[in-house]
Order: sequence, then structure tokens, then C-alpha cells
Amino acid sequence: MLSQFKFVTGNPNKVREASEILDLTLESVQVDGLFEVQSPDLDIVVRHKAEQAFSILQCPVMVEDSGLVFNAWNGLPGALVKWFEETVSCDGMLKMIEGFDDRSATAICCFAVYDGKDMKIARGEVNGTLSSSIRGNSGFGWDVIFIPEGYEQTYGEMSPNEKNAISHRKRALDQLKQELS
Amino acid sequence: MLSQFKFVTGNPNKVREASEILDLTLESVQVDGLFEVQSPDLDIVVRHKAEQAFSILQCPVMVEDSGLVFNAWNGLPGALVKWFEETVSCDGMLKMIEGFDDRSATAICCFAVYDGKDMKIARGEVNGTLSSSIRGNSGFGWDVIFIPEGYEQTYGEMSPNEKNAISHRKRALDQLKQELS
Repeated sequence: MLSQFKFVTGNPNKVREASEILDLTLESVQVDGLFEVQSPDLDIVVRHKAEQAFSILQCPVMVEDSGLVFNAWNGLPGALVKWFEETVSCDGMLKMIEGFDDRSATAICCFAVYDGKDMKIARGEVNGTLSSSIRGNSGFGWDVIFIPEGYEQTYGEMSPNEKNAISHRKRALDQLKQELS
Repeated sequence: MLSQFKFVTGNPNKVREASEILDLTLESVQVDGLFEVQSPDLDIVVRHKAEQAFSILQCPVMVEDSGLVFNAWNGLPGALVKWFEETVSCDGMLKMIEGFDDRSATAICCFAVYDGKDMKIARGEVNGTLSSSIRGNSGFGWDVIFIPEGYEQTYGEMSPNEKNAISHRKRALDQLKQELS
């Protein structure tokens, strides 16, 4: 029932990655006027985005969002991390966490697939630590401050292939594949 | 044209305060399913909320939102301050700002009045400083960490009457009164 859906995104790299992992030919579509509800909780944000996209497109949809939780901050920034990047930047985030002993963080990606009746949510998480300074030139956003568990490099110091093989997005897509099969 | 509108809020104190300052008999209404768009910018949040409320109620509406900007954080938390309160709490916010020299902050309140055609936005701001610890039992939210310019007390150490006479909400309502007249 949910095998045919449009991936609502403007990012062709995400479409390629998702198509490969899900082993589906995914059609993608950009939707103007789609917005994100104010919450640090990724589940809430993707559910809401999926409902909106369905109500605009009137066809089964897939949406995605990702975020970074600083465990000392009890859920923050979470899905709100993009606003931290735009205001204080990654440098500022490291300065804000300085006074806290716990520097562990969790990278989270959520996908929602919705056909107007069933909502399937898939979540991928990667535990890790915040670096003490900006490191790396690869990736985007907060990749330069997140060191996944078991590695010494930040996401930003890894090649795209290395990161994509172990990332929170990869885990969420693996989970989604199970949900859909 | 915009003299008749419903104030979309569940807070009777806000209704009383707004009625008094605007010198209008305000009808208030609670709207289920109204949500806030993800942005630290109060103008964006109230515009969006007003459009939603109008589209649900199909009558002229007034909405309100407020927030606190830490100037060292370039716009953050702003309208997102409620999520900071819910996750790290006011104590956590003070810990996050410790590494920054600039402890100045701006309390902001925005009202939007919308009749489906014209959108009137009124904004009130109060400059101030962040206290070094939680102070006071009055008020709500971040009142206990914000010291308005020219005062030694936090909002939370003032009586409701003292605070309401000088607050960002009072200034926004004064501004709105001018806009509407």
C-alpha cells in the first residue's frame, strides 16, 4: 500500500541515497509553503510535515528531518538545531555547552511516509560526542562538531561515503525499509 | 475595519490586559490545533499564527507571542525560548550564557491582527540584562532571569502591576492601539 510515494525534498543527494537504500525508484517533489512546526522533537516535526505535504499533494508522501540532541540539554537543540546554526553557529553551540560536563550527543534522523491513513515513522540514531572545536570541511551543518561513537573523526572529517555508511540517516532508511516490507 | 476581532488565546489575564489598554471589549476564543511555525523570529510566528487562526475561524483575529533574545546569541532563543524553558530550564539558559561576555537581552512581544486582507503587526521591546541566578517568584517562564533596563529587580521580583506597567507586552499593546486608531 505504501510502496508508491513521492519524496518531498529539494535535495537530490537525499533522493539518490534513499532510492539506493530502499531499492525503489523514488520520485521527488519540492513543495512551496511547507513549513515546520515549532518543536525540538523530530517525530512531531515529520508527522506534521507529512500531513501538510499530503494535504497539498493529495498523494502518498515521504518526508525527512534530522537533528542533534545534546544530552546535557535534555532534548535541545534537536530539530531546532538549524536555528542554532543560523544564529550562534557551530562555534557558538560549543561555547554554550562549555559549562556542562556531559558532552555526549545523539544524531537523529526521522522519515515519515503517509498516505492519508497510515503514518509510518522510521527513526535512526547515532550516539556520539561533541568535539572541542570545529573539525573538517566535509558534510554540512553540524557535521563539523559531531564525533560518532567508535570513531575519532567528526562527520565533517569523513568522506561522504564513509559518513553515509554509518549515519543516522542510513540507519533511519534501513529501519524504513523494514517498515515498508 | 479592524476594530472587531477575536483574541485567540486561552489566557484570561492577557484578555483583561489587552481589553484595558486597547479600550475595547475583546472577545476571546481558544482554537484547538493551532500551532507555531519553527522560527526564532516573533514576526514570522505571529503572522503565521494569525493566518491559520483566520482560516479556521473565518473572522478577524488577534494573536500574540512573546520571546527573549540573548544579544550574544544573535536572535536566539527568541520565540523558541519556551523550548529552552521546557528542556534546559532557566537555570540551564544561564549556564549556557556563562561563556559569553555580553549578558544583555531583549524581551519582545508581538501582536498580529488579521482580517484576511490586512495584517497589522505591533511589536514591543524592552532591553535588559540576564541575572546571574534565578530571582523572584512572580510572573512566569523567563521572568525570573530578566532584569529590565533601569531596574534592579527581575520581572519575577516585581508585582504583576509593576511588571505590566513597563513590560514588552504593554509596549506592544500601546503600539497596537496606535496602529488601530
